[in-house]
Amino acid sequence: MAENSVFVGNKPVMNYVLAVLTQFNSGATEVSIKARGRAISRAVDVAEIVRKRFLPDVDVKDIKISTEQIDSEQGTANVSAIEIILAKK
Amino acid sequence: MAENSVFVGNKPVMNYVLAVLTQFNSGATEVSIKARGRAISRAVDVAEIVRKRFLPDVDVKDIKISTEQIDSEQGTANVSAIEIILAKK
Repeated sequence: MAENSVFVGNKPVMNYVLAVLTQFNSGATEVSIKARGRAISRAVDVAEIVRKRFLPDVDVKDIKISTEQIDSEQGTANVSAIEIILAKK
Repeated sequence: MAENSVFVGNKPVMNYVLAVLTQFNSGATEVSIKARGRAISRAVDVAEIVRKRFLPDVDVKDIKISTEQIDSEQGTANVSAIEIILAKK
């Protein structure tokens, strides 16, 4: 399990890019980017922007998708989730 | 390269689930689910629904993310893309 992770929500994508860069700059060798539901697309954006624009020596080590159950007013609902693990080469 | 692929757009998710099931039922051993931009979340939904509800003997063989350049009125723009390869166990 990556020791550092960034959970992507509805804020602007650069907020999360900055969070990932900060963790790598403070010595992390792996950073896990996690998201659920519609934020999954933004999580992929974050991983791609970090790799292409800021840290070319970082690679995608693994990507996992899963289904999580969340409680809502109407009972439990299934939501897709993604975990993208970035690691220094 | 998976010989069969389904490109996920803005239609209801079950349209794409059906397309993937149809390809497996007509003998495909691998089906690649592709999407760009905001449809990436839906592509993950499609893969999860196919695996969890319909074809438990299908697994995620590989997931790739990338950045593609698309032409828009304002010139070329970068958009994230995903490819999820499902394969029979």
